Amino acid sequence: MENVTGKYLALSGGVGGAKLALGLSHVLTAEQLLVVANTGDDFEHMGLTICPDIDTLIYTLSDHNNKELGWGRDDESWQFMQACEELGLETWFQLGDKDLALHVYRARCLADGMSLSEVTRELCRRFNIATPIVPMSDDSVRTRVETSTGTLAFQEYFVKHRCAPVVKTIEYSGTDEADLSPDFLRLLQDPELQAVIICPSNPFLSIQPILSLPGLVSKLKELDKPIIVVSPIVEGQALKGPTAKMMQELNMECDVYGIAECYKDIANAMVIDHKDSGYVEKIEALGIKVCVSNIIMQSLQDRIDLAREVVQFSKQVYAGYR
Amino acid sequence: MENVTGKYLALSGGVGGAKLALGLSHVLTAEQLLVVANTGDDFEHMGLTICPDIDTLIYTLSDHNNKELGWGRDDESWQFMQACEELGLETWFQLGDKDLALHVYRARCLADGMSLSEVTRELCRRFNIATPIVPMSDDSVRTRVETSTGTLAFQEYFVKHRCAPVVKTIEYSGTDEADLSPDFLRLLQDPELQAVIICPSNPFLSIQPILSLPGLVSKLKELDKPIIVVSPIVEGQALKGPTAKMMQELNMECDVYGIAECYKDIANAMVIDHKDSGYVEKIEALGIKVCVSNIIMQSLQDRIDLAREVVQFSKQVYAGYR
Repeated sequence: MENVTGKYLALSGGVGGAKLALGLSHVLTAEQLLVVANTGDDFEHMGLTICPDIDTLIYTLSDHNNKELGWGRDDESWQFMQACEELGLETWFQLGDKDLALHVYRARCLADGMSLSEVTRELCRRFNIATPIVPMSDDSVRTRVETSTGTLAFQEYFVKHRCAPVVKTIEYSGTDEADLSPDFLRLLQDPELQAVIICPSNPFLSIQPILSLPGLVSKLKELDKPIIVVSPIVEGQALKGPTAKMMQELNMECDVYGIAECYKDIANAMVIDHKDSGYVEKIEALGIKVCVSNIIMQSLQDRIDLAREVVQFSKQVYAGYR
Repeated sequence: MENVTGKYLALSGGVGGAKLALGLSHVLTAEQLLVVANTGDDFEHMGLTICPDIDTLIYTLSDHNNKELGWGRDDESWQFMQACEELGLETWFQLGDKDLALHVYRARCLADGMSLSEVTRELCRRFNIATPIVPMSDDSVRTRVETSTGTLAFQEYFVKHRCAPVVKTIEYSGTDEADLSPDFLRLLQDPELQAVIICPSNPFLSIQPILSLPGLVSKLKELDKPIIVVSPIVEGQALKGPTAKMMQELNMECDVYGIAECYKDIANAMVIDHKDSGYVEKIEALGIKVCVSNIIMQSLQDRIDLAREVVQFSKQVYAGYR
């Protein structure tokens, strides 16, 4: 992208965030962009460590995401699952035959003592992804959802129970002892950092686990640089997943203003959709600069256009800090 | 089978031995038969513990063996392998998509602290196999082949190098510290034991690893019961695999007499093919009773017929001991 200098940090969950991350990977060079993935969704399943958000980012940025399903890997088959079903093994979490190659490889590398950052770097290399994707932490952080029917591990809530139970609170188990992953920390301390972009992901399930890492919020506040939220909500509806449902259950306003309130302590800029332009004044009253754009990304070009707009907006905001 | 009492122990390797084990499972009840599998072929691969002989026995006795390939599981596909190839991962050992369900399940159970005997029992249950199949040992024994091109782990020799290197010696690493698996030991001490059947498997790669276990040979000698070898060789040719080639490389006579010599310390009976009936006198001179039969098992009925003959023969031999 012409006239873009400096480096950008993108915080992302799975499918929704990965759309913008893909766009950003088209407008920024591999040296300019670091995508930090939520790992609160990670879980141990059948002896494998599954990292749904990292995997979605890898498949999306390598153009191996399954466009029909909206999750998982392309050109997928389910013979392994069928054999598991025949054997009476767990089948609530779908593992495709090709997807398994990634999980088996990761499990072996982790067992060999590699960090999750190292395994992820190796996976990016093997998937021919230039843009670095890193986990938020190499330590285990596990999102747990306290619901009307008891406390559930994240994937149990999300996949097994399909987000049906009413959410009371959410905790990020292990976060107190978790460190930021080395590349994440390095970029936060890099004078060339221009902006932090919070991708349109679920605030509670995808972004808050990252923000829960010790010291991160104060580091972000001290940055004095643009911290831009791209709203995951348009006209009170989540672009993807249970964001709107959870906001209601957590007694929050289920609109872009509610999202702005979630992030008001750290964010100083926000990108919302044209359809929500009526909220600009209210959000700016929180001290958050607003950019109105088309944030519903259907085509690849939509992703690239939004990414370009976010980067341009960050330059304006950045200029305001100098 | 009418008039069959007592218990039978079958020592088996993979495909060849599993044919007779299947036949035996048709003529003996689940309480009468214990199949002991060689685990010298086992290896750690991509973080999974692969037990080729146990797996072949499981697939064969559950009628899930792949009849077209002659190895592996039926109704198999190879999407996992294709994904591994695309990622530049190891592909020399073929793991089918359905086969993986067994390996992933086993790896998890072993990581959870289950013994190989326990995992194998659980797999038999899930595959609806009544006949118990047990590993020779729950401890790690690994066959290593010293060849003209260096020392190779068994699967490297067998699969990666397709048995091409000339064999000098074979060792069973870890055997000194390995115990017989609990069910194996229990049946050896069971007064109801009628006979030990050595299935038509490769003597060096499939049976000798079992016999290398500390104290087993002396236990077998003390039994004073029929120990019956079913020849894996007919007319100087191996029924399956590299037995004949290895006998030549190890400077042994490559015929049923060579097989008899391999086992002369422990075996007191042997079943050979009609085509080798000229060897009867020579083998009996070693103190080994001989039964001549059709040992080339093509159909299921062939397997059952040979099993019935072996059991009948064992009764005659057993009678000679009383």
